[in-house]
Amino acid sequence: MLGPSKKDTETRITLIGTGTIGLSFAAFHLTHLDSPSQLTIYDTRTDVAEYVQESLPKFFTGEDKSSLPSFSEVKIAKSLEEAVAHASIVQESGPEKAAFKLNLWAEVEKYAPKDALLWSSTSGIPASQQNCKMQDTSRVLVVHPYNPPHIMPLLELVPSPETSEKVIERTQEFWRARGRVPIHIKKETTGFVANRLAFALLREAVHLVDQGVVSVEELDQIVQTSMGPRWAVAGPFKSYHAGGGPAGLEGFFKNIGGTVQDCWADSGTPNVGDGWEEKVFKDAKDSYGTVDIGERDRITRRLLQVIEEEKSRGANTK
Amino acid sequence: MLGPSKKDTETRITLIGTGTIGLSFAAFHLTHLDSPSQLTIYDTRTDVAEYVQESLPKFFTGEDKSSLPSFSEVKIAKSLEEAVAHASIVQESGPEKAAFKLNLWAEVEKYAPKDALLWSSTSGIPASQQNCKMQDTSRVLVVHPYNPPHIMPLLELVPSPETSEKVIERTQEFWRARGRVPIHIKKETTGFVANRLAFALLREAVHLVDQGVVSVEELDQIVQTSMGPRWAVAGPFKSYHAGGGPAGLEGFFKNIGGTVQDCWADSGTPNVGDGWEEKVFKDAKDSYGTVDIGERDRITRRLLQVIEEEKSRGANTK
Repeated sequence: MLGPSKKDTETRITLIGTGTIGLSFAAFHLTHLDSPSQLTIYDTRTDVAEYVQESLPKFFTGEDKSSLPSFSEVKIAKSLEEAVAHASIVQESGPEKAAFKLNLWAEVEKYAPKDALLWSSTSGIPASQQNCKMQDTSRVLVVHPYNPPHIMPLLELVPSPETSEKVIERTQEFWRARGRVPIHIKKETTGFVANRLAFALLREAVHLVDQGVVSVEELDQIVQTSMGPRWAVAGPFKSYHAGGGPAGLEGFFKNIGGTVQDCWADSGTPNVGDGWEEKVFKDAKDSYGTVDIGERDRITRRLLQVIEEEKSRGANTK
Repeated sequence: MLGPSKKDTETRITLIGTGTIGLSFAAFHLTHLDSPSQLTIYDTRTDVAEYVQESLPKFFTGEDKSSLPSFSEVKIAKSLEEAVAHASIVQESGPEKAAFKLNLWAEVEKYAPKDALLWSSTSGIPASQQNCKMQDTSRVLVVHPYNPPHIMPLLELVPSPETSEKVIERTQEFWRARGRVPIHIKKETTGFVANRLAFALLREAVHLVDQGVVSVEELDQIVQTSMGPRWAVAGPFKSYHAGGGPAGLEGFFKNIGGTVQDCWADSGTPNVGDGWEEKVFKDAKDSYGTVDIGERDRITRRLLQVIEEEKSRGANTK
């Protein structure tokens, strides 16, 4: 796991929902809390205890068996009240339905300590649509991970206009202390930032495959051998700022702004349901069948460790 | 350097143009040819010999001094005829002007061996606009690197409709034998593929910074801690195909196609010259000043070495 190994002996974390995101958060916290008993999981599924015992170890493949946490010490709550009554942090990763989250936070507010941080993992329902039934609307914010959160460093913190500064700061401190990268998104933009960026590239990718310029696999190879590794080290602005020499990003646009604009003007704008799906889905299936996520995550972790190492040696990875 | 260490004793490579791209290609070839004397450089600048001697070593920072090639053995040609007369490969990285390339290839054709491969590094002028004055229009194709080519594995091979299959195949074989990833682009699309994809994401990035959603540096941090490292290992299609579980990319769109479409429908479409420049350029300059490209490239190389290692151990990085 990335991040400092200093254990946290006081925080009591409650996770609501045991989908992939919820369990991946659980795996992350289990490597940063002093004791698994500081973690509580709540889900309405009837077999939750068995399910968690069976599923959680899968997030620790490749790690030293002797250092695995004692999964059976994780608390499984029988009611929402029991789940949140002593929590310092409550993160929900439940169904992506506004009604569910609305009602959940109204209930959580009744039972949780007044200073508990209340986070939603949602990828699309802004905090301002989740807090409407609460007495204190300043408490909830979105803490959107890049999947899977036990590996990927990014957390998008998306407060509503009512979320208090104090809550945002405490949330940032929590993640920074654990070696993660919480970024405060200033406006509740549709899809937040990471997905908007990735989907913008995906849209052009769909267009190019649909037009027969490259195949799905060729397109992936292109990204994997160019902007993927580049952007792991220096994001797009930093890269193009460097590409412009001493004149920076301005120099870059002076030099090749014409080409950039030609590409923008020529870019495809396929929509979901436009008819490209059959070809693109089939191409992906034929190329990849079922992807070995374990291998992908293992290699990703190695890359992140290199970057982490460089950072701790003082490399300027900002 | 990446790629197999087996040296090439026969190929004679001529590089035309000594800009950053030309010299970076020279650095790559010097680590793969048996002798620096197999490399010829031609440029019309009068101080070319001194300039090359002074500049080439800068591409070898961080490497074992004792294993550096003997730069003085690189041939500096005094005329185009001398430069290409014995070449098996000619790659031009000259000015991005169609007229320059048109005339260059007509001249090269007069003097180069009939079976020499003729490549252009252009990022924007298609082979079909470069070959018009040639007797044999089937010889030229674009071999567009991702900068800098002595580090980044990708080469976009963009033939004109007239380029022969044999030329494309020989070009692919050359790069594959050196551990590089040559991708055959099937149509002469504006900007080819890598830049189109990167610029699509850049456009949304410009929009989000212009709207005040995040800063330049925050946006870069988001990319560096999420899709950057992810896409270094598995490109966008493969990642979303994996994200869809057993139903693959189709499952992914079934689950969150709505969110994808919401982002697409809400995406920004700034154009060059629309007025976002002042803010975005200033933000980049304030954040980064002058970027240390050496550090970026050194870390990028470490990441690529991890991926190379994993590949040679049999990891499925396709």
